[in-house]
Amino acid sequence: MVPKGFKYSGVRCGLKNKRNDLGLIYSDRPAKSGGVFTTNFARAACVDHSREVVSRGTIRGLVVNSGNANCCTGEQGIRDTKTMATLAAASMGVLPEEVAVASTGVIGHLIDMSKVEQGIAEAAPLLSEDPVPFVDAILTTDLVEKWALVYVTREGHVSEVLDTKSQGLLTIPADAAKVYGVAKGSGMISPNMATMLSFVTTDLSADPIDLQSVVKKVADKSFNCMTVDGDTSTNDMLIVFANGAAEFSVESNVFESALAAVCISLAKQVARDGEGATKLVEVRVTGSSDPNKIARTIADSPLVKTAMFGCDPNWGRILMAAGRAGVPFELGAVTLAIKAGDEEFLLFESGGPASFDAKRVSSALKADHVIIDLGLGDGQSATVYTCDLGYGYVRINAEYRT
Amino acid sequence: MVPKGFKYSGVRCGLKNKRNDLGLIYSDRPAKSGGVFTTNFARAACVDHSREVVSRGTIRGLVVNSGNANCCTGEQGIRDTKTMATLAAASMGVLPEEVAVASTGVIGHLIDMSKVEQGIAEAAPLLSEDPVPFVDAILTTDLVEKWALVYVTREGHVSEVLDTKSQGLLTIPADAAKVYGVAKGSGMISPNMATMLSFVTTDLSADPIDLQSVVKKVADKSFNCMTVDGDTSTNDMLIVFANGAAEFSVESNVFESALAAVCISLAKQVARDGEGATKLVEVRVTGSSDPNKIARTIADSPLVKTAMFGCDPNWGRILMAAGRAGVPFELGAVTLAIKAGDEEFLLFESGGPASFDAKRVSSALKADHVIIDLGLGDGQSATVYTCDLGYGYVRINAEYRT
Repeated sequence: MVPKGFKYSGVRCGLKNKRNDLGLIYSDRPAKSGGVFTTNFARAACVDHSREVVSRGTIRGLVVNSGNANCCTGEQGIRDTKTMATLAAASMGVLPEEVAVASTGVIGHLIDMSKVEQGIAEAAPLLSEDPVPFVDAILTTDLVEKWALVYVTREGHVSEVLDTKSQGLLTIPADAAKVYGVAKGSGMISPNMATMLSFVTTDLSADPIDLQSVVKKVADKSFNCMTVDGDTSTNDMLIVFANGAAEFSVESNVFESALAAVCISLAKQVARDGEGATKLVEVRVTGSSDPNKIARTIADSPLVKTAMFGCDPNWGRILMAAGRAGVPFELGAVTLAIKAGDEEFLLFESGGPASFDAKRVSSALKADHVIIDLGLGDGQSATVYTCDLGYGYVRINAEYRT
Repeated sequence: MVPKGFKYSGVRCGLKNKRNDLGLIYSDRPAKSGGVFTTNFARAACVDHSREVVSRGTIRGLVVNSGNANCCTGEQGIRDTKTMATLAAASMGVLPEEVAVASTGVIGHLIDMSKVEQGIAEAAPLLSEDPVPFVDAILTTDLVEKWALVYVTREGHVSEVLDTKSQGLLTIPADAAKVYGVAKGSGMISPNMATMLSFVTTDLSADPIDLQSVVKKVADKSFNCMTVDGDTSTNDMLIVFANGAAEFSVESNVFESALAAVCISLAKQVARDGEGATKLVEVRVTGSSDPNKIARTIADSPLVKTAMFGCDPNWGRILMAAGRAGVPFELGAVTLAIKAGDEEFLLFESGGPASFDAKRVSSALKADHVIIDLGLGDGQSATVYTCDLGYGYVRINAEYRT
């Protein structure tokens, strides 16, 4: 199922209890890479290391641990990141400057390098085409695994997305290339659970493509359109590996479509699995000079998010959040609809509330996927993915240490 | 206790159950006024009306109702605001264009004007120097009344603040002027509970003062430094009435100090009474080019707020929030301390965690007033007032309709 020329492994080295906590990705030939990294000023050493690897353009592998973010750990933290790259590179027979490093977990504690060393030694011989142990190794408070796959034909056809929500399996033509992404993330960060991570491998050749610019564009319409609590981790990263093993390339826009399909699916999976969430909330704003800013303000509003948790068709909170985003609009031109399950309800139009059956809307809002559709007139569109805010979020974030 | 020449009243006219819901303020002579108003693009008609009254410079009174925000109610809502001004003005023997209007409560429903009319008729004869019925009339989900008082002598001495937290009473010299403020606010807004309102009366003369610019400056260091959930109401307003009845004026900076003392006390009271809050959290940031932006990002972070609720000395979340504010700093220069109750704890210094007893800090964090003190080096300071985020917030905002 995975792209040609890539191998994955995951083991438990003891940084966490019970679950896998160390993973490797290996490409049997040099891969082109692109990546985006957290903009947080308090960031981990692994972010700087991996950004350097990606900026050199050629990558052979990745080592990732969960259970310890190795952040705010000073000079020793920087040395430990370098050691992880060196050990992983040696185990895979490549160079340290070709191996990205990612860490996620508690902040401010030195990582137990003896466990990491043992984990890498155990993981390297287990590298295989089965990605599941790797997918497990990057999770923290995530309740579910997150992966997504598309295939791309030589003719430039991009398949539908196969992901954890899919009912069936894709029938993948033997000579098609694949784009396979995994992700983790639940709260955007917290010391015991930090970080959004995503790694995408493809056997498409990216040689004719400006991969970094494609990755940046795709991140802006997938992971950068996702918010659980507005917080940005110290360790966030997305890295794309393109090793060309399928022995063909496609037009840049086809590559971008395939990568976007995978990353948007992963972003929705991360939002849906937000800490304590009961549903995915998709906020679509159309007809504004800055629809993304308005959509993000709505998606980050605790009052909107608690209303979604409470199945409350509370259009007043949605308009209030839109109104404070700092982007002008005319109330008289506003249309607000909510889609939940198979139903769609008009809540507000032409400056005033529409006539709707609040009980019926509330009942529909029990669905696990809700779309808030706000029309402000003519202009651009944007979509932001988030989740609701309920008791579970408070429980996880206020009580996890007790 | 209230400034000379002002009278207040409050009655229950039936827009809400059980509590007072209509209030009047009356000045027996023309007062100079200044005000700040919500910047939300979805705002109520009363905001536009009151801004016009304040911009004309002379004010005689105010009518305020709770239980209905009269927002998103179209042309009829605008007419109803004008009618409120007209009825209140007639009942007090002044002009409609001298009477400010404020409304707070559910959004999107026409206000029952027969109740409002009856309320104004009942409230006018009750105007007196007892402000308590008025203070009650503006509350919604607030758990406690909010008021603050200072006196100012002819020599320009500003007294300490007397407020709902004070143990004793001030002994106020007979010839001193007073600055008396009231406020309401709990969640920044929600359709059933909307709005931050504050009205400050003083018998100081503001004749030699640019009152509007003083009010703006004071709002920026009091109410604009307060956040419960980052949401801004459609109906927020602060109006200052200065009627000169004490027959003296003071230097502009003295006037500003007195007004600031009252407004900062009120802002802290509003933050402390945030929906579901168990404590006031004061975020102080020093040594940055934009300390306010960093302090606000920390104060709005759900992860920081849930940690405060959980009494968790979680310095990683505080640094993470600081790091994503978009204002650069060096991790190596960071000092983070927490003050809770009578104790102070150093949590982070010189790029790494300090040595502290987490259990002792956690125990101290049970205090109802916590100060987060973040030092980033040399530079300006800012303080933002907020509260913690707990189950109560979710309960109030997810379930209030059920």
